[in-house]
Amino acid sequence: MDVLSFRTPGLGDQTYLLTHDGRGVLVDPQRDIGRFLDAAAERDVELRFVLETHLHNDYVSGAEQAALRTGAELVLPAAAAPAYRHTPAFHLEDIDGGDGLTLRPVHTPGHTPEHTSYLVLIDGEPVALFSGGSLLVASAGRPDLLGIERARSLARLQHRSLHRLAALPPGIALYPTHGEGSFCTATGAGRLTSTIATELTVNPLLAIDDAEKFADTLLAAPMPIPAFYRYMGPANTLGVPAMPPTRVPDIDEPAGHVVDLRPRHVQAQGMLPGSYGIELDDDFGSWTGWLLPHDQPITLVAEPGQDVTEAVTQLAQIGIDTVQGVVRDLGQAATQTYRLANLDAFVELLGAGLQLLDVRMPSEWEQTRLEGAIERFLPDLFTQGIPAELDPERPVLVACASGRRAAIAATYLAREGYRPIALTGAGVPDVANALDKLN
Amino acid sequence: MDVLSFRTPGLGDQTYLLTHDGRGVLVDPQRDIGRFLDAAAERDVELRFVLETHLHNDYVSGAEQAALRTGAELVLPAAAAPAYRHTPAFHLEDIDGGDGLTLRPVHTPGHTPEHTSYLVLIDGEPVALFSGGSLLVASAGRPDLLGIERARSLARLQHRSLHRLAALPPGIALYPTHGEGSFCTATGAGRLTSTIATELTVNPLLAIDDAEKFADTLLAAPMPIPAFYRYMGPANTLGVPAMPPTRVPDIDEPAGHVVDLRPRHVQAQGMLPGSYGIELDDDFGSWTGWLLPHDQPITLVAEPGQDVTEAVTQLAQIGIDTVQGVVRDLGQAATQTYRLANLDAFVELLGAGLQLLDVRMPSEWEQTRLEGAIERFLPDLFTQGIPAELDPERPVLVACASGRRAAIAATYLAREGYRPIALTGAGVPDVANALDKLN
Repeated sequence: MDVLSFRTPGLGDQTYLLTHDGRGVLVDPQRDIGRFLDAAAERDVELRFVLETHLHNDYVSGAEQAALRTGAELVLPAAAAPAYRHTPAFHLEDIDGGDGLTLRPVHTPGHTPEHTSYLVLIDGEPVALFSGGSLLVASAGRPDLLGIERARSLARLQHRSLHRLAALPPGIALYPTHGEGSFCTATGAGRLTSTIATELTVNPLLAIDDAEKFADTLLAAPMPIPAFYRYMGPANTLGVPAMPPTRVPDIDEPAGHVVDLRPRHVQAQGMLPGSYGIELDDDFGSWTGWLLPHDQPITLVAEPGQDVTEAVTQLAQIGIDTVQGVVRDLGQAATQTYRLANLDAFVELLGAGLQLLDVRMPSEWEQTRLEGAIERFLPDLFTQGIPAELDPERPVLVACASGRRAAIAATYLAREGYRPIALTGAGVPDVANALDKLN
Repeated sequence: MDVLSFRTPGLGDQTYLLTHDGRGVLVDPQRDIGRFLDAAAERDVELRFVLETHLHNDYVSGAEQAALRTGAELVLPAAAAPAYRHTPAFHLEDIDGGDGLTLRPVHTPGHTPEHTSYLVLIDGEPVALFSGGSLLVASAGRPDLLGIERARSLARLQHRSLHRLAALPPGIALYPTHGEGSFCTATGAGRLTSTIATELTVNPLLAIDDAEKFADTLLAAPMPIPAFYRYMGPANTLGVPAMPPTRVPDIDEPAGHVVDLRPRHVQAQGMLPGSYGIELDDDFGSWTGWLLPHDQPITLVAEPGQDVTEAVTQLAQIGIDTVQGVVRDLGQAATQTYRLANLDAFVELLGAGLQLLDVRMPSEWEQTRLEGAIERFLPDLFTQGIPAELDPERPVLVACASGRRAAIAATYLAREGYRPIALTGAGVPDVANALDKLN
């Protein structure tokens, strides 16, 4: 038996391909299934099963399409009841894969009500556990994605599920779907895979015996929920169409929302008026899906020759199939500008009394605050608008933790007529340290 | 072991109280839990468990309140994940009730994804099955309440669930929650309880081996879905407050929607202008919940001395807690009138060329149609309004199957200024027969 991992870094998720004697089991595939099917083909592996641990809330699934494309059997939790054809996995009712391969569904509600983990047995020996969004590396799937009302109940269920899984033989390898960087993960984790034995030692949540204390811990400091999440569950319940083409045409006239994915130092020199700047990176899709209205036409702005496949793929992974094309020649139209500042320059400008906008999230504010900073989490900037305290007539310093969010916020301010200066390559904690040294 | 049945005729549902050695198990209790708790007390039975087979879509549940009131353990399907404290029932994981009483949850998705039946074993011997909305008497729970998109998938799951239950020992007594008269029941049934053996013989759905044919049959002629159903699932997921008081004050000035529950021959002589007439009967709550906007203030109109407890209870059973009071003295204000006609008079008026409105549902139209009839199903009359073809200047004959819906429709027409004449004590098929005899 071999298990291949496929990371989708922008979503913090892992897809797995288990292979055994030429048969494959694909677990929680992202929508861009080509990479999984190619890997199977390269290894001469025939896909026997496609498994979904739950109806995902953070991406649109490629599971149904992978099954349709390969003839593999699509397995979902018996309580998922999606609108498409599948084999329901009932709690502890083994599914025989032939040649000694057995799948044992374990109903592990908590992250979602129907959530089911899959224990893989080879010749009757349990060897691997695909734990989806239940037991994660040093963490657990968050229980509050279906609404705060059900969060405590789901946390109690998660407690029970984690302890059920922790009671499995310790040598079993653990392959969770959600990991570091996923907003489905309750707290940070480091490694991507683990074993039951390791988690028993290092997972702080497994050390909590009391269900209420467990729920308190899990719900103590909930991460924000990206705005596009709300569309993922329904999409995965109703069925997701095949990946759209990732090659999009070059166009001259932008249509819909314009997203500039060029490097921020290029954006800063001149963007199309009204455009948003979201530099292409692993989390390009997540930020675009979080900040822009879902499923409306999008035009990308890219550098001449820049490959936009990755950008289109990331958007498709969260169900945004509305990229109209790419504008590459901005000509004289690139009149929307902003400034970037490194740490030294930023601290100097701050010392000169410029106004400051901190676009990190509330839990980060609680860690470090700068005196006089006006705080608005980046997504709230897009939904609530620019804080009234900011004077459009004066330059606005914008900071986050790294420059990523500050640069995006700067483009939002620029399109609204402000004169932003984004801190890049550093963040608020660095500014705080620098100020400390000055004083 | 003994099983008491409590029928809620207007909803077509049954609640059960299983008693064994002084211990009680309450299954799918309606919201008015007094009658169940009284029955338990009368028999000196201590409630040990309150079971929910699923998150109901046709009424608000009394399960949580029954458990809170008695200290019984509240058990729900593990994939229900309601917002309140409960014990999750996992597929085939026995729950020990002590003294030889065992509950075996059987995950039976189909009516809903989380739906779980409960097999009761006494001293290890399976004796009774509480099948909720899965295997019903000569029928099955309908799979289309969660939307037409998922209906076929849920029908396939229901097929599997029915066959799973049918494979249980034939002597087991069957206690379904949904029965005749419930809009959760796919097709009509007659008796209220049964056995596995009987169903194997008489249930036409169990005779269908092929899942697709089963789904075709189940989905062939879907019954309409009462408008209030959409509020029941969320209410049962979030938690239902205790029953409101069933005694409501006499008031002089009506507030909100006015519902006249007096006998139709009394209504016809004079109602408050703008009021709706829904004569008190088993289905008073269902029709009120279907026809009026949910959860807005309601004033009842009753006869002097008429007990309105039943009306308030029926409304509370579907989560309508907004009865403001009862008006009993209409005085000179009762100016809204309509006419009632028996079969002979109705046929004569029809022969005289009066316009005719048929307010039965589409499946009934397909059975019998009257020439020239304008057809609009009663609930559609309330949402779509009165058909434009009807001339308000001329009397309108209104018919259904019995007079029940025709009388309600007549009050709707009357409040809009029409001059309706409702066929009472007979229906469209009777009119058709009478016309046949005349010709």
